[in-house]
Amino acid sequence: MLECIDLTKTLKKKETKALMDEMDRELALLQREAKQYQIPVMIIFEGWGASGKGTLINRLIQPMDPRGFKVFTIQKENEEEAMRPFLWRFWTKTPAKGRIHVFDRSWYNRVVKDRVDGHVSKEQLMNAYSEIVSFEEQLSVDGTLIIKFFLHISRKEQKKRFEKLASNEQTSWRVTDEDWKHNKQYDEYVGVYEDMLEKTDTAFAPWTIVEATDREYASAKILSTVVHILKNKLDDVRQAQNAQSPGAPAPAALPAEHAFKTSVLDGADLSKSLSKDVYKKRLKELQTKLGTLHSELYRRRVPVVLAFEGWDAGGKGGAIKRLTANLDPRGYEVVPTASPNDIEKAHHYLWRFWNNMPKAGHIAIFDRTWYGRVMVERIEGFCTEEEWQRAYKEINQMEEHLHNAGAVVIKFWMHIDKDEQERRFNERMSNPEKQWKITDEDWRNREKWEQYEDAVNEMIVRTSTTYAPWVIVEGNSKYYARVKVLKTVVDALEQRLK
Amino acid sequence: MLECIDLTKTLKKKETKALMDEMDRELALLQREAKQYQIPVMIIFEGWGASGKGTLINRLIQPMDPRGFKVFTIQKENEEEAMRPFLWRFWTKTPAKGRIHVFDRSWYNRVVKDRVDGHVSKEQLMNAYSEIVSFEEQLSVDGTLIIKFFLHISRKEQKKRFEKLASNEQTSWRVTDEDWKHNKQYDEYVGVYEDMLEKTDTAFAPWTIVEATDREYASAKILSTVVHILKNKLDDVRQAQNAQSPGAPAPAALPAEHAFKTSVLDGADLSKSLSKDVYKKRLKELQTKLGTLHSELYRRRVPVVLAFEGWDAGGKGGAIKRLTANLDPRGYEVVPTASPNDIEKAHHYLWRFWNNMPKAGHIAIFDRTWYGRVMVERIEGFCTEEEWQRAYKEINQMEEHLHNAGAVVIKFWMHIDKDEQERRFNERMSNPEKQWKITDEDWRNREKWEQYEDAVNEMIVRTSTTYAPWVIVEGNSKYYARVKVLKTVVDALEQRLK
Repeated sequence: MLECIDLTKTLKKKETKALMDEMDRELALLQREAKQYQIPVMIIFEGWGASGKGTLINRLIQPMDPRGFKVFTIQKENEEEAMRPFLWRFWTKTPAKGRIHVFDRSWYNRVVKDRVDGHVSKEQLMNAYSEIVSFEEQLSVDGTLIIKFFLHISRKEQKKRFEKLASNEQTSWRVTDEDWKHNKQYDEYVGVYEDMLEKTDTAFAPWTIVEATDREYASAKILSTVVHILKNKLDDVRQAQNAQSPGAPAPAALPAEHAFKTSVLDGADLSKSLSKDVYKKRLKELQTKLGTLHSELYRRRVPVVLAFEGWDAGGKGGAIKRLTANLDPRGYEVVPTASPNDIEKAHHYLWRFWNNMPKAGHIAIFDRTWYGRVMVERIEGFCTEEEWQRAYKEINQMEEHLHNAGAVVIKFWMHIDKDEQERRFNERMSNPEKQWKITDEDWRNREKWEQYEDAVNEMIVRTSTTYAPWVIVEGNSKYYARVKVLKTVVDALEQRLK
Repeated sequence: MLECIDLTKTLKKKETKALMDEMDRELALLQREAKQYQIPVMIIFEGWGASGKGTLINRLIQPMDPRGFKVFTIQKENEEEAMRPFLWRFWTKTPAKGRIHVFDRSWYNRVVKDRVDGHVSKEQLMNAYSEIVSFEEQLSVDGTLIIKFFLHISRKEQKKRFEKLASNEQTSWRVTDEDWKHNKQYDEYVGVYEDMLEKTDTAFAPWTIVEATDREYASAKILSTVVHILKNKLDDVRQAQNAQSPGAPAPAALPAEHAFKTSVLDGADLSKSLSKDVYKKRLKELQTKLGTLHSELYRRRVPVVLAFEGWDAGGKGGAIKRLTANLDPRGYEVVPTASPNDIEKAHHYLWRFWNNMPKAGHIAIFDRTWYGRVMVERIEGFCTEEEWQRAYKEINQMEEHLHNAGAVVIKFWMHIDKDEQERRFNERMSNPEKQWKITDEDWRNREKWEQYEDAVNEMIVRTSTTYAPWVIVEGNSKYYARVKVLKTVVDALEQRLK
């Protein structure tokens, strides 16, 4: 979930002044309402050392009434605490109804620090995850609102911050040997954090990843997120209490909401391209390699699932064509996904995809996928918000089951920009051989580009896992895109068959 | 969950004829309604070999419209199926909306047969459990009704049935060498089944254990359960569709419902007693032993949780007094549980118990416990049905967390019969020194004896786990009861400290 986050986001203090003031007022009001409606709230801050947890917590609580919240700084457990189940000290710190408890680090220490320091065995680690999930579920189903932030900075940024602290006499004590060690082990920690985020990103207590390079940006995003989530929760509670008037209007989105959506697409460099000569040469090499690997994975009984999503005219079809050019047709299948038919509609939305999962040794290539649930179905209202919200977890579970059964699972997002799409649409319109490829619906979808952008960003962050990663394919250059797809598949299969 | 089930229940065919006819008519009607409301239904039969799955399934489907259901007999996976994730063949068999699929054995093969036959590694087993739970949750949250039966017979009964089949030329082929082996390994299988029932008994897909010694009884219980669950589900669906009129009356319980509740209390032999001499001798021995064990567990840092529940005047106080008589008071604490105060009410219902969990090396004795949630709170309506239904899982989770942290957890149900309670109540009334022990509320609770009986039976079955077992203490004789409590604790601690 972390690799693809764009960490370059910034905001100017001056620009955000008015926005921040507005959100502060809103938060103060929401705190009072949460008290009135007796909602307990837990706000958890996790993240890299020197990512600014202290500063950002201070900023967040500024507008709040101090009688209604409390900040807990979680350090190593004391002797009393160490003699009880590790969640004990957090159970005792759960907020009463109407109160807000903010945690600077939390129970996640167990699966990060304790884990890396070797205080936790593998079995304890597995237990810890299930205990954490049930802890959060028990509280959340009982009415507690749980908001979890992960503050993300790059290795370089972290080093810069440590150096700055170390160079100042007043603050140098704050940087420990351990901090330097952590910075060296940054890559190892990425794995640990990914694992933590994957295993504990639930519908009832989802993570929000905060790009924390720029303090202004991070402050604004945190504030906006808390306001947004609290608002929704209050709305749900109010609606539940007035069950006689269902269908109350959904709360208006805050103007700031869109601005703080985590973007993974923005980071994609769409200027990447390949010359025709290089393309032809690389394509041939990779196709040959893939052919060999295909036989090998058949022999070794490895199932492979390749999922293609992307903008209309993003190049899915072309990429799939090049991918399969040199494959033995008995060993792969391309599964196109259209709107569900009546029989499919009468089943669980994952049913038709389960039906098409490949046998061991075979490749299934899905042209559009189960991700329709969190894109088109979400945006067009073909399913309820509750349904698409929980779909992230369900999809992760399905892909994990495939992984458990030995499958290689890769998901491609074929990415182009809006201008390139227009160019391709027009080209299709004017080319009689390609006209069938373009419909009125494509133009209509295009009008919802920003909505799709938000949905795709959220989808990629929530479902990019170590066992089934998303690969964003910079697709403005078709040559570049096709080679990248092939190369990714070849690399993954080589890795798997090693 | 299995040990304490009373397997002697029987019904006479003649007696049940009218009841069965009524339920048949009801089921036929409910099937049509489930179709009309587009509810997919899965009914799963698991259980011992020769427990009568085939016969009982045949009986169940008799009244149903054959166009609306299908029975699947699950055997070893075929070659095609073996090449996919183990749940694949069940995903493909999930029912469309409005249809009923009955499974003679199911995905639970994975965690029973495949496990015992060594086809599944420990890691695969752990994965299988989480995959099964998410499979059932995904379907259930999407609207599928999942009804799971476990058919339970004793080792002796199983042997008798195998022998009968084997002695008849027509049926002898049905008993395999493997069957005989299973009967020999009965005790080992009990552990495997307990594990399966514990790990997969969820609020969205709970198990119903069927006492299957007597076919008539088992048939009636299965039919009654299906009717009852389907009725409730239809009611929920109808209510959700008419959200404008909340507070619709709950469905009337079937007359047969109470009769088929699984009883663990009925199996308790309340005639057990001890003479005063033997009592005094045994008590002293055990108290001395417990004193020694107490020091040892302090040294070894083992936490101990002893939970006492039982009928009013069931002897909790007396047992606790004898338990602690010889213990160093610095090493244990008795935690009495009254109605929650305002601060406790403002938190999660488990919060106050978490607060009192013992440190490593200490004993916490709870006089009444978190089980209030599924007894008094359930019966008096202090919490919603949804809340107490999910409490079984939450309580099991809490106790598992304690177990994971190294704790010994034992739960005692102090059991007396209704006459004995009346005798003790009257004794208390007439004894000025004991009058404080009896209140009007005790008499009021007594009037709800049957309701409590149902709740306690369900509680013990759902929460008696390998890591935190229930012990039913036959309490009509106080001497016997106190010795049994002490003996149980001593044995468990010796086992743990071995």
